[in-house]
Amino acid sequence: MALTVHAQLSINPSFLSISRTNTKNPTSPIYHLNLLRVTHSITITATPSSMSSRVLSVKSSLIEPDGGSLINLVVPDSERLSREREASELPHVKLTQIDLEWVHVISEGWASPLKGFMREDEYLQSLHFNSMRLKDGSVVNMSLPIVLVIDDEQKAKIGGSSDVGLIGPSGDPVGVLKGIQIYKHNKEERIARTWGTTAPGLPYVEEVINPAGNWLIGGDLEVFKPIKYNDGLDHYRLSPQQLRKEFDKRQADAVFAFQLRNPVHNGHALLMNDTRGRLLEMGYKNPILLLHPLGGYTKADDVPLDVRMEQHSKVLEDGVLDPETTVVAIFPSPMHYAGPTEVQWHAKARINAGANFYIVGRDPAGMSHPTEKRDLYDPDHGKLVLSMAPGLEKLNILPFRVAAYDQKEKKMAFFDPSRPQDFLFISGTKMRTYARNGDNPPDGFMCPGGWRVLVQYYESLQAEETSKPPTVVSV
Amino acid sequence: MALTVHAQLSINPSFLSISRTNTKNPTSPIYHLNLLRVTHSITITATPSSMSSRVLSVKSSLIEPDGGSLINLVVPDSERLSREREASELPHVKLTQIDLEWVHVISEGWASPLKGFMREDEYLQSLHFNSMRLKDGSVVNMSLPIVLVIDDEQKAKIGGSSDVGLIGPSGDPVGVLKGIQIYKHNKEERIARTWGTTAPGLPYVEEVINPAGNWLIGGDLEVFKPIKYNDGLDHYRLSPQQLRKEFDKRQADAVFAFQLRNPVHNGHALLMNDTRGRLLEMGYKNPILLLHPLGGYTKADDVPLDVRMEQHSKVLEDGVLDPETTVVAIFPSPMHYAGPTEVQWHAKARINAGANFYIVGRDPAGMSHPTEKRDLYDPDHGKLVLSMAPGLEKLNILPFRVAAYDQKEKKMAFFDPSRPQDFLFISGTKMRTYARNGDNPPDGFMCPGGWRVLVQYYESLQAEETSKPPTVVSV
Repeated sequence: MALTVHAQLSINPSFLSISRTNTKNPTSPIYHLNLLRVTHSITITATPSSMSSRVLSVKSSLIEPDGGSLINLVVPDSERLSREREASELPHVKLTQIDLEWVHVISEGWASPLKGFMREDEYLQSLHFNSMRLKDGSVVNMSLPIVLVIDDEQKAKIGGSSDVGLIGPSGDPVGVLKGIQIYKHNKEERIARTWGTTAPGLPYVEEVINPAGNWLIGGDLEVFKPIKYNDGLDHYRLSPQQLRKEFDKRQADAVFAFQLRNPVHNGHALLMNDTRGRLLEMGYKNPILLLHPLGGYTKADDVPLDVRMEQHSKVLEDGVLDPETTVVAIFPSPMHYAGPTEVQWHAKARINAGANFYIVGRDPAGMSHPTEKRDLYDPDHGKLVLSMAPGLEKLNILPFRVAAYDQKEKKMAFFDPSRPQDFLFISGTKMRTYARNGDNPPDGFMCPGGWRVLVQYYESLQAEETSKPPTVVSV
Repeated sequence: MALTVHAQLSINPSFLSISRTNTKNPTSPIYHLNLLRVTHSITITATPSSMSSRVLSVKSSLIEPDGGSLINLVVPDSERLSREREASELPHVKLTQIDLEWVHVISEGWASPLKGFMREDEYLQSLHFNSMRLKDGSVVNMSLPIVLVIDDEQKAKIGGSSDVGLIGPSGDPVGVLKGIQIYKHNKEERIARTWGTTAPGLPYVEEVINPAGNWLIGGDLEVFKPIKYNDGLDHYRLSPQQLRKEFDKRQADAVFAFQLRNPVHNGHALLMNDTRGRLLEMGYKNPILLLHPLGGYTKADDVPLDVRMEQHSKVLEDGVLDPETTVVAIFPSPMHYAGPTEVQWHAKARINAGANFYIVGRDPAGMSHPTEKRDLYDPDHGKLVLSMAPGLEKLNILPFRVAAYDQKEKKMAFFDPSRPQDFLFISGTKMRTYARNGDNPPDGFMCPGGWRVLVQYYESLQAEETSKPPTVVSV
């Protein structure tokens, strides 16, 4: 179903450039869009101007899901009762809320062609190669281990059973794991290879991995019914299949995804609108933006999902993004904060949802080093690793320069290194401090409606803290 | 130049089996020789016996080097002087002994298609994917970062130069690194992703990485003349090109490599001779064994190279291995002790030397966890990871069961799980303890000539220690 568009792409070098310090000889092809590497039919036409002009053929939406078909592990309605009855006879594993989020992710095909929690061969490939080789020899990206942990007691209970039932955090039957394999959960190795550090204080490690058991259980997943959260946001939780239908309905000929877990400021908006403009220049007639906030586990000081969704809807109401060409939906994955390893997962999952362009910025999925005063990851490594990642060759990676507040023009703009003194960098922490203190950020940083949502959220937090009884401190 | 042999392969399942605990449903194809995955023209013929019989087409020696051609970075004799003169004008980097070993490795093409110390794009691919994608889209294995480290002072001295001269540990000009790129050496991330732990006490980390600087310098290598050690063993240091010539001269139609860093006991020999027998059964007429001890850096308590080479030569003299069908040579790489990550490097380098079969045992390149009482790596992960590693599809991986001393038969034999009480496991540590104490191991453990070499080595060590002045201990 993929249609091929022959398009004239005018690339503004400033859009592509990645600032590199310590680069003596930047001859590597990785500093280019990897759409230039997707196809072997590239013709490069030298132009005298600063704009390089290239003729290339790009696969438009709908891009093929990884493995060729979208995984859907929800059993048909007609079989639900019988499957639930069968499962009730099996030994069972009780899921945590985050396990359930992964069940959600797997069951809807975000991790296609993964059909369940990883068995050891899949786990090892993910850990060592960030990718998996399929039976036909093709390779798909798979950078995060998607695993289910059990402890010694649960392992003993499962005994020799080849299948187990999965019970949700509230005690309801969720599904079955079939043809299981139980293998060792070497936490240290998993953490070191996923995060590139074993320093204490990584949120997902502290909250999810460290308290969990010493065994991993892999197998084929079946889910009795679609996972719902009943938090008033389920209508935003479109599955990859539903997203693909929506893109078809809108007759999208390109879909560009924007992953985020923060409120949208005008710098983000600039970038998304700029990307749309460039896609139009490339010859696409109807590029659609997938504004795709992450909806699973996030660390405690991130802005909660419901607040973010309200903020995003204000951004569309205020006309900062055009609702006609924007789909807002929730990406149900939990967050690892694993930088270059995780950004691959973020991109790969969006292939399955039908996006063929992926926007990547500075330090994606990064955070501060938990024990040292520095970024955990080199801020450029995310886009470099993403542009070279096995299994992502068919995705067009759009790296972008950082946007900052231009104090001269009084708006968010792409940082201009020729006049650094004019630009104000407003980090997530700074933004939260403004909102917490009831201060206004500079004019033009965020649309007023969106900003009000944040201010109200931090006011409610403070009200909550004030109303708490004082903590008794024993000396 | 690769010729295709259609052969009948009889596989004894006991040869293939990998003991798996906690495996509920071992359906994965990874428990098979990956030669079964190399070709899509496999015909499987079911047989009623316990021997499975398969018709397959296997690429014989000489297997293609990675990237299609063997890298050789030694400048022609006629240009040496002029190149040395040019280099003398450049800022220079002083190499450690281990840097020089890597220069040796790269310059002879063991790491083909790598043409020098890694630039950042190569480094990141190695670290995250254990492999590198070439310009033509093909993938080669590259699991260890092969990097040169410099410190702040050296970086400042290099300034804006695009090339640097390389000076050996003894002050002699070694070569040039051209089109250099200097980038950050994030030691923690390198260690975590390479070893899967950051625990203190990893030999290569403590001795090589921790004392080194905070910058990596990549570029294209040129070497003025072949690297020599003048230790009486240089005649064993055959380059991949020389090995390929030797295999051609011997008219090898299969080459099976055995990586080791320990003395050869009769268990090893059993395995190598057994492999040869199986290759003959498969229809090969002249399978040649590459007995390929690692010759670069090893940890302090490993048996030194000169002793091992003498021991190996006794093993051939004593007729345990047949000199007619065995090539003994030194693999010049330093040792990382990085288990599943490193075994890929060990296998990949042997492809470049012309081996198309690679023998892998229990816990390859493994060691004890430096701070915990356990193996650092799951002993099965090495062969599992190797059998799935990107870029190694063309290599035939031969996993083998552990050999142990059969007290009933009074010889080394493949461990028979039906009578475990008959088998004695003699670890490297136990073997060294026997030799150190002047005790004899059980009859048939090692050929007498080889054993004498070890005993003499440990006697000489003790003599050395005795002759040392006593250490003054201050209380």
